[in-house]
Amino acid sequence: MAKILAEKALIARFRRLAKGGRTPAIRTGIGDDCAVLRLGGFGSKRRKSATETLVTTDFSLEGIHFRRDWHSPESVGHRCLARGLSDIAGMGGEPAAAFLSLALPRDVSQSWVNRFAQGLLKLAEKHSVTLAGGDAAESPDGILADIIVIGTAPAGKAILRSGARPGDGIYVTGELGGSAAALQYLQKRPSQKNPKSKLNPRHYPRHFFPEPRLEVGRILCKKGLASAMIDTSDGLSTDLAHICEESGIGAEIDSAKIPRAKVGNPAHEVDLELALHGGEDYELLFTVRSSKRIPAKIAGIPITKIGHITRKKKIFLIDSAKNARASRSELRPHGWEHFRK
Amino acid sequence: MAKILAEKALIARFRRLAKGGRTPAIRTGIGDDCAVLRLGGFGSKRRKSATETLVTTDFSLEGIHFRRDWHSPESVGHRCLARGLSDIAGMGGEPAAAFLSLALPRDVSQSWVNRFAQGLLKLAEKHSVTLAGGDAAESPDGILADIIVIGTAPAGKAILRSGARPGDGIYVTGELGGSAAALQYLQKRPSQKNPKSKLNPRHYPRHFFPEPRLEVGRILCKKGLASAMIDTSDGLSTDLAHICEESGIGAEIDSAKIPRAKVGNPAHEVDLELALHGGEDYELLFTVRSSKRIPAKIAGIPITKIGHITRKKKIFLIDSAKNARASRSELRPHGWEHFRK
Repeated sequence: MAKILAEKALIARFRRLAKGGRTPAIRTGIGDDCAVLRLGGFGSKRRKSATETLVTTDFSLEGIHFRRDWHSPESVGHRCLARGLSDIAGMGGEPAAAFLSLALPRDVSQSWVNRFAQGLLKLAEKHSVTLAGGDAAESPDGILADIIVIGTAPAGKAILRSGARPGDGIYVTGELGGSAAALQYLQKRPSQKNPKSKLNPRHYPRHFFPEPRLEVGRILCKKGLASAMIDTSDGLSTDLAHICEESGIGAEIDSAKIPRAKVGNPAHEVDLELALHGGEDYELLFTVRSSKRIPAKIAGIPITKIGHITRKKKIFLIDSAKNARASRSELRPHGWEHFRK
Repeated sequence: MAKILAEKALIARFRRLAKGGRTPAIRTGIGDDCAVLRLGGFGSKRRKSATETLVTTDFSLEGIHFRRDWHSPESVGHRCLARGLSDIAGMGGEPAAAFLSLALPRDVSQSWVNRFAQGLLKLAEKHSVTLAGGDAAESPDGILADIIVIGTAPAGKAILRSGARPGDGIYVTGELGGSAAALQYLQKRPSQKNPKSKLNPRHYPRHFFPEPRLEVGRILCKKGLASAMIDTSDGLSTDLAHICEESGIGAEIDSAKIPRAKVGNPAHEVDLELALHGGEDYELLFTVRSSKRIPAKIAGIPITKIGHITRKKKIFLIDSAKNARASRSELRPHGWEHFRK
C-alpha cells in the first residue's frame, strides 16, 4: 500500500511539475492509460492528422511483478507485453509497435531469455504488433523489463478516463479477482496437509497468460459506446477511483453483480475482497450513457453491468441481494500490492 | 566488455526473432538510434503521412550509468533525458514528448526525486519536450529509470545508420573522450598526494549535463547533408562500427584529426584511447557525400572531418601527422563499459 501511495505521489508530483509543458501535441498526458499525442507535423508545420498516437509504458520488475520460481519465462514475456497492450485496449486503440528495455543480471541463462522472448513475441504476433526496438543493459539486481507500446486511435476518439457523467452505467468485461486469487495460491507454502498447494497454471491460465481485451476496446471505440474507460490493472476499487477522479464524479457499485473469477482445482469463486481490490485482471472497466444499449457479450467476452455513476464524488458499495435496508458502505481504493519476495 | 557483447547478442537475438514481424508501419526498427514508424492510419485505413514517428528508449541504471555519490540528482535527471534526446538528434529529428518509467528503492528521499525531476524537466523545457506520461514502481535495488522519447521527422527524411557509401567523408560534432575522462577523474580515490582528486563538475560540465546536438541534427536533415548518422553514446569506435555494419561498408579514420576534449583543472587534452573508445559524449557522427560542403560550424558547434568511408568492410586508423609510412592499424570497436560499483 505504501508503495502504491508513493507511486501515486510521485506521478502526482511529476504531473504538477510537468503541467506547464503541455503543448498542442499532447491531447492527454499523465493520468490516463496512455498518453494521446497528435504528431501531425514536423517543425512549425503542424498539420491536422486523422490519427492520434497512443503511448504507454509499464515496468515488469522481478520480485515486484513476477517471480522466476512462480512464472515461466514465457509467462513473464507474455505478461510484460500484455500490460502495455491492455493500456491500449483501455483507450479503445489499436497497437502498432512495441519497444522493450531489458536489463538482465549475470545469472540469467540464454535459455531463459529465449523463452522470455518467445512468450513476448507470440503475443505480439497474435495482435500484429512489431517489436521495433528497445534497449539492453546489465542489471545490478533482478530482471528489469520496461515495455513501451505505441498505438493509434482515430483523432479525438480515444476513450479517456475523464468522460463519465452522472447516470452512466458502469460495465466490466470478463471476471474479476482471478489474478489476485492465483497469487494467493502461489504464495501458500506446501504443507503436509496440502503438499501441492502451488497453483497449476492450467487451473487459471489468465493469471499467467492474460489476454488484453483489445477487440472489445476497439468495438467500443468504433461504435462510440463508452464514455470513459480504463483497464483493471490495479483492481476495481482503484481503477474505478481513477475514472471518478478524472471525470469529477462518484459511483455506486452493486456487490452482488460483480462477476467473480473461479480459480483452482476444483474451481472456487473468489472472495468479494479479491474481486473488489485484486489487480492484474486486465479486464476493461467502462461507463456508458443510459440511452445506449450494451450487448451481453462483445467479441465473445461477457459484459456485466455492475453499477452507475453518481454526482456525489464518492464510491459506494451496495448489496442488492440483501433486503430493503441493504448494506451501503463507502468503497475506498485499496492499492494493489502485487507481492513481496 | 562482456556486458556490451551480451547486450549486442541480446539485441541481435530479438532482431532475428522479431524480423518476421516487420510490417509496413515500421520503416526501420532495431538497429538504429530510433525506430521510425509510419502511423498514418487506424485499422485497415492506413494513409500516407507527411511525418514519421521516431521512438527511442534508454535505461539509466544506478551503478551502471550513474552513481549517487558522483552525480547530483539534477545531473541524473538531465542525463536520463539527454540520452533519449541525443537518439532523436542522431536521426535528424525533432523531439515531441518524453515518458519516464521510474523505479525507486525505499531509501531515496523526496528531495532527491524533486531535484531529479527538476534536472529532467529543465532540459525538457529547453527543447519544448512534454513529459507526457510514464510508470512508477518500487525498485528492489537501486534507482532504475527508463526514458522514452517520441519525435518526428519528415516522411522518408530521418537519417539512418545505413546510408553511408564509399567515398563519403566522416564528420563529428564537438569533441570526443571528455565524458570518459571525467569518469576516470571520478574513479580516482583521493590520496595524500592528491586529496581533491574528484572532478569538480565545473571543470567538465558536459559529462554532468550533456547537451544533445538536436539543432545540428535538424539542420543536417533539413538540408539533406548527411547520408548516415549516429550519436556517439557508445564511443567513436563502436558507433562508427554500427554505421559500417548497417551500411555494409568500411572506414578510414585519421587519428591526428580526431577532436579531443580538454578536461580537468588545469584542462588536459584527453588520451587518444579515450577519444576513440570513450562513450557518452553525445556528439553526432555522420557521413557526407564527397560532392557536398560542410561548414566549419553548424549551429555554433564545431564540425570536424576525421576520415572517409571505404569499400573494404573494415575500419582502419591512420596517422597523417606521421611521415609517409604512417602507421595504419585496424580499429576494432571497444565496448564502452560505463563503470562498476
